[in-house]
Amino acid sequence: MGKIAIAIHGGAGTILSAEMTPEKEIAYKNALKEALSAGYIVLENGGSALDAVEQAVIILEDCPLFNAARGAVFNANGAHEMDASIMDGSNRDAGAVSGVDGIKNPVALARKVMEKTEHVLLMGEGAMEFAKTIGFPILEKDYFFDEFRYQQWLSIRDSDNFQLDHSIKKDQKYGTVGAVATDGEGNVAAATSTGGMTNKKFGRVGDSPIIGAGTYASNHTCAVSCTGSGEFFIKSVVAYDVSCLMEYKGLSLSEACMEAVQKRLKALGGDGGLVAVDPQGNICMEFNTPGMYRACKDSEGKEEILIYR
Amino acid sequence: MGKIAIAIHGGAGTILSAEMTPEKEIAYKNALKEALSAGYIVLENGGSALDAVEQAVIILEDCPLFNAARGAVFNANGAHEMDASIMDGSNRDAGAVSGVDGIKNPVALARKVMEKTEHVLLMGEGAMEFAKTIGFPILEKDYFFDEFRYQQWLSIRDSDNFQLDHSIKKDQKYGTVGAVATDGEGNVAAATSTGGMTNKKFGRVGDSPIIGAGTYASNHTCAVSCTGSGEFFIKSVVAYDVSCLMEYKGLSLSEACMEAVQKRLKALGGDGGLVAVDPQGNICMEFNTPGMYRACKDSEGKEEILIYR
Repeated sequence: MGKIAIAIHGGAGTILSAEMTPEKEIAYKNALKEALSAGYIVLENGGSALDAVEQAVIILEDCPLFNAARGAVFNANGAHEMDASIMDGSNRDAGAVSGVDGIKNPVALARKVMEKTEHVLLMGEGAMEFAKTIGFPILEKDYFFDEFRYQQWLSIRDSDNFQLDHSIKKDQKYGTVGAVATDGEGNVAAATSTGGMTNKKFGRVGDSPIIGAGTYASNHTCAVSCTGSGEFFIKSVVAYDVSCLMEYKGLSLSEACMEAVQKRLKALGGDGGLVAVDPQGNICMEFNTPGMYRACKDSEGKEEILIYR
Repeated sequence: MGKIAIAIHGGAGTILSAEMTPEKEIAYKNALKEALSAGYIVLENGGSALDAVEQAVIILEDCPLFNAARGAVFNANGAHEMDASIMDGSNRDAGAVSGVDGIKNPVALARKVMEKTEHVLLMGEGAMEFAKTIGFPILEKDYFFDEFRYQQWLSIRDSDNFQLDHSIKKDQKYGTVGAVATDGEGNVAAATSTGGMTNKKFGRVGDSPIIGAGTYASNHTCAVSCTGSGEFFIKSVVAYDVSCLMEYKGLSLSEACMEAVQKRLKALGGDGGLVAVDPQGNICMEFNTPGMYRACKDSEGKEEILIYR
C-alpha cells in the first residue's frame, strides 16, 4: 500500500486570531480533527480516496460551525440553497448538485448523481426530484436552523447586501468545506460543499458545484477542493488550473498551487484558497487570505490542524 | 485595426449528408450565413468581439432550426430549460444563466448577469427573477413552440430516454449554438447557448453555461465555444483546456484544439466539437463527430459555411 494522505478545509477569509475566543478556536479545531480522522480512517482501512473525501465532508456538513448543509447560511428568502460536488480521479467521474434544500448531506447526493445518472450537474427542483426518486430524506427546516445564522441574516435581509459567510463584517470569510485524499492505490479524489452566501439572491451559483472551478481530480495530476470568492474561482477555473500547471508546465503540486492561488487568482482579484493532494500523497494547503480552516494528515506522520496564516 | 475574425457553430453530431434534403441543407447554410454576417458586420464597423459574439448567437437563438432559445427542445415536463454563457477575453468577465424559460435571448440575459451583477452564474427561478427585475420580457410558450420538436418529445415522453437534440435516432446530435470572435483591437470573446436535451429530467445542466467547460475567453490565449456531450465536456474542462495547452504547453490554436478534442476529450469518451479564435485572428473549427454546423469569416478573405466533415 502506497502513502495515504488527506487534507480538508472549512473555508477561508479574514479569520483573525484577535477576533477569536479560545473556546471558539478549540471548537473549530475539534471539528476539523473529527472530519480529518473520519476520512483518514477510511484510507487506513484500505478504503478509496472517494469514500474518504465523502466521509470527511459529511462530518463537516453535519457541523453547524461551517457554512455547509447543517450550518448553511440563509438566502434572501430566508431559505437555504446548498451546492456540492465530488470527483473521482481514477476515472474522472463526477457528480454535483446546485440549489438544493433540506438535504442532510449534499455531498452524498452529488455522489449519487455521479453513480446513478449519466449527468454531472443537477440543479434546483430537478435535483430535489432526483433526491426524492432515490429515497433521500428531505429534512425539515429546523435541522438547518442556527440562531447565529438567523440573526446574521435578519441583520442584512432588508439590504441589498449579501455575505459570503457568517461574519457580520464585510463578506471576507468564505464558507465552504472540502476534502481531497490519496488512497493506498494512488487514486485521488476531491469533494466540496457549501451553503452559499448570506442573503444571496437570484439563484447565484458559486464555484463549489462546478467541476474545474471548485473541484477537480485526476490520477494523472492531483485532486483539488477550493474555497473563496466563487466568481473569481469560476473565471480562473482554479481547480483545473492547478492540474494543467502540473501536466502541461511540469510544476510540482506545491508550485502549481502557489502559482494558481498567489499569482493567477490574485491577479484577477480573487481571494481564497484550496487544499490539494497528488497521487504520491503530497499535500498542499494554499491560500491568499489571512486565514483558512484547514487540516491534513498522511501515513508518514504528518498531522496539522491550523486556522491562521 | 488588426485582423478581425469570427467563427460560429450550430451543434455537432451524427449529421450525415445521406439524411439531409437539399432544401434542409440550404436552410441551415442560410441560417449560418445570416448569423455569421451579423457578427462580422459588428467587427467590421469597429465593434467589440463581445458585441459580435452576442449578435451572432442572438441570430442563431432566433432561428428554429437550432436547439437554442426559439428552437429549444422540450424537457420531460414539456417545458423548456435553456442555458447560456458569455465571456469577455479582455478582462475575463463572464456571465451565465441556467434553466431559464420564456427568455427570447438567453445569451443577452447572460451578458446582463455579467454587467449588472457581481455574479457569474444565476440559475432557475432566481435567474428568472433577475430577468424580470431588469425588465426582460418573459415570452409566452407559443413563441418557442415548434411542431417538429413537440412530436419528437411526444415520441419519447413516456420513456426514460432523453435526446441531446432533435434526431429521433439515438442522441447523436448535440444541439447548441455558439460564437467566438477577434476584434480589431485584438480582444477575443466567446458565447454559447443551448436548449438542452429532449425529455431531460432532474434539472440537468450541461457544459454550455459553465465557464471553462463550454465557454472560455482570454486575450492571453483564445476564445472557445463548445458543443457536444456536455457531461464529458464538463469533466474534460474542454474550453479552458485549449487555453492551458496554448499558455502552458506552447501549442498553437489549431494544435491545442486538435489535442483537446481529438485526443483528450475522445479518450474520456466525449463526442462533439468547438469553434475557437486567438487574438491574432486565427480560426479553428474542430470536431470528432461526423458533422458540425459551422461557419467562419475573417478580414483576409476567408469564408466557410460547412456541415459535414
